[in-house]
Amino acid sequence: MIEHISRRAALVGAAATTLLPLAVGSTHAAAPLTGRQAPGWYRYKVGSFEVTVVTDGVNRFKMASDHVTNRPLADVSAGQVAAYHDPNMMTTPYNPIVVNTGSRLVLIDTGGGDGAFKSSKGMAGQMMANMAAAGFDPNAIDTVIVSHYHGDHINGLLDASNGLAFPNAEIMAPTAEHKFFMDDGEMSRAPAGRMQTVFKNARRVLTPEVMKRIKLYDPGKEIVPGITAVETNGHSWGHNSHIVASGNDKVFVQADVTHVPWLFARNPEWHAFYDQDGPKAEATRRRIYDMLVADRTLVQGFHYPFPGLAYIEKAGNGYREIPLPWSPTI
Amino acid sequence: MIEHISRRAALVGAAATTLLPLAVGSTHAAAPLTGRQAPGWYRYKVGSFEVTVVTDGVNRFKMASDHVTNRPLADVSAGQVAAYHDPNMMTTPYNPIVVNTGSRLVLIDTGGGDGAFKSSKGMAGQMMANMAAAGFDPNAIDTVIVSHYHGDHINGLLDASNGLAFPNAEIMAPTAEHKFFMDDGEMSRAPAGRMQTVFKNARRVLTPEVMKRIKLYDPGKEIVPGITAVETNGHSWGHNSHIVASGNDKVFVQADVTHVPWLFARNPEWHAFYDQDGPKAEATRRRIYDMLVADRTLVQGFHYPFPGLAYIEKAGNGYREIPLPWSPTI
Repeated sequence: MIEHISRRAALVGAAATTLLPLAVGSTHAAAPLTGRQAPGWYRYKVGSFEVTVVTDGVNRFKMASDHVTNRPLADVSAGQVAAYHDPNMMTTPYNPIVVNTGSRLVLIDTGGGDGAFKSSKGMAGQMMANMAAAGFDPNAIDTVIVSHYHGDHINGLLDASNGLAFPNAEIMAPTAEHKFFMDDGEMSRAPAGRMQTVFKNARRVLTPEVMKRIKLYDPGKEIVPGITAVETNGHSWGHNSHIVASGNDKVFVQADVTHVPWLFARNPEWHAFYDQDGPKAEATRRRIYDMLVADRTLVQGFHYPFPGLAYIEKAGNGYREIPLPWSPTI
Repeated sequence: MIEHISRRAALVGAAATTLLPLAVGSTHAAAPLTGRQAPGWYRYKVGSFEVTVVTDGVNRFKMASDHVTNRPLADVSAGQVAAYHDPNMMTTPYNPIVVNTGSRLVLIDTGGGDGAFKSSKGMAGQMMANMAAAGFDPNAIDTVIVSHYHGDHINGLLDASNGLAFPNAEIMAPTAEHKFFMDDGEMSRAPAGRMQTVFKNARRVLTPEVMKRIKLYDPGKEIVPGITAVETNGHSWGHNSHIVASGNDKVFVQADVTHVPWLFARNPEWHAFYDQDGPKAEATRRRIYDMLVADRTLVQGFHYPFPGLAYIEKAGNGYREIPLPWSPTI
């Protein structure tokens, strides 16, 4: 970089003492503001696999008084402020991923679908656009792996007209989760309100066309070559996480072991109203996060801020996520 | 989202007990691996301004034995490991920003230029490509503000053939920095090795064409409407940071008050070999970071991982950056 400077440096040295008046910059029209954000996808390698985060965006909503069922709202608001978030508004990210194993194209979880979150003004419902920006044809998805049956993880199985968003894909769902949500007895015994809504939504999304493509899987098994299911019950009845592994590399795709990390990794003893079984979800959270810390395992978090890839360390009574630096190449 | 489910739920309930064999997913060609990363730009609002981070990428190099001049290499390697980085390899991000004030398009610092970091295999030298991806025409840049005269902040003033990368822009440079690096006496007194290289590179980049466009500025002044220079000497002789402010919003564009935060925010007492005056750089670092903590001011860091936008909090004897969550809209 440093070359042939002696003569130029002398010239420059002279010029420095007599800076010329500017005759530039005055004739240009103001550049218009764009209002446009970068596309929300990010790619990294796990061994020979390519993992692409295709964010569905975020949704913002007023914090419910029971957002954390075992803490007063004031504590939750204080947790928000401690993490530089709005005390009263929750901003939840949604980060499905596409794993290209070289032989199969696998989507793990969907976002809320095209029709969802209409009130979000474009902040949510971005997954299909981000998949397209990342170069994926929905028809090329071979497998959709579903971690559990909450709407933000399954609604995107359907397109805006309730057809199949991934027409050629098999849909892999956890056996325990599927049986629970399809059980009319369980549904009839579920409390009114949110839990009934979750049941009804799951049954809405599992249309006959979806059902035809469902293949049930069990934790502890390699369900697609390179992708192993891990039992992480508590957040839902049959909640699963997934280890994506290739060569010596792996990433732990945690689904909802924690909801947003700034509240629930930091405070693992807090029970989100989304947690179907609070104490079991907490025990799972501590078990999994202690393992991630001990093994220095990379985690991909569905509700982590995009791109959602981080290491975990202990912090006080809980955990802190250390985001992996963005890499400009893969 | 929840509607007309009773009849469908009944059908679905029936289907659940007799899952059909799959007849899909077997006929598709394997999707090719792409090798392609998302473009490296990110946009946010500061009041009515649009700020766009246009990363130049990162560079990786073997850690020099004096990377931190007042600590042994073993301490620095341990710092790298504590932050989940490679103990022996430094990965340095470079994050110029474009500020559209509505009336002017202002670039703050450049990356290493098209010709730089050729050994990086595309990891660095990305700024112009990312500016194009973000929708910016280099001819539309009205002003380039330079924080200081180190190569990674000024080399991109030139294109690959050493012409002007931003032909219509005025180039604003700190008076003290400019005078220091143009002073032949200072150059002759500078130690051999790195410091001579910095001098020679600055004089290489400040071609007569660049010099014609230079307009000197002083700290403590609003140098472009909405952008105020702040004296942050130490890292270089006349190093400046910038406050970008509009309405009630502001961001502190810190340039190199810290180099990579995982080493130098965490350990403000460490003197990077890049710091021209280690003790002064340390004092500036503590003064500025204490202010950022006290005021909860958002910081944009040139050497922070892309997109480089964070809040700062105290951590042990130093500081920790809390990245602002990625927003899918601006």
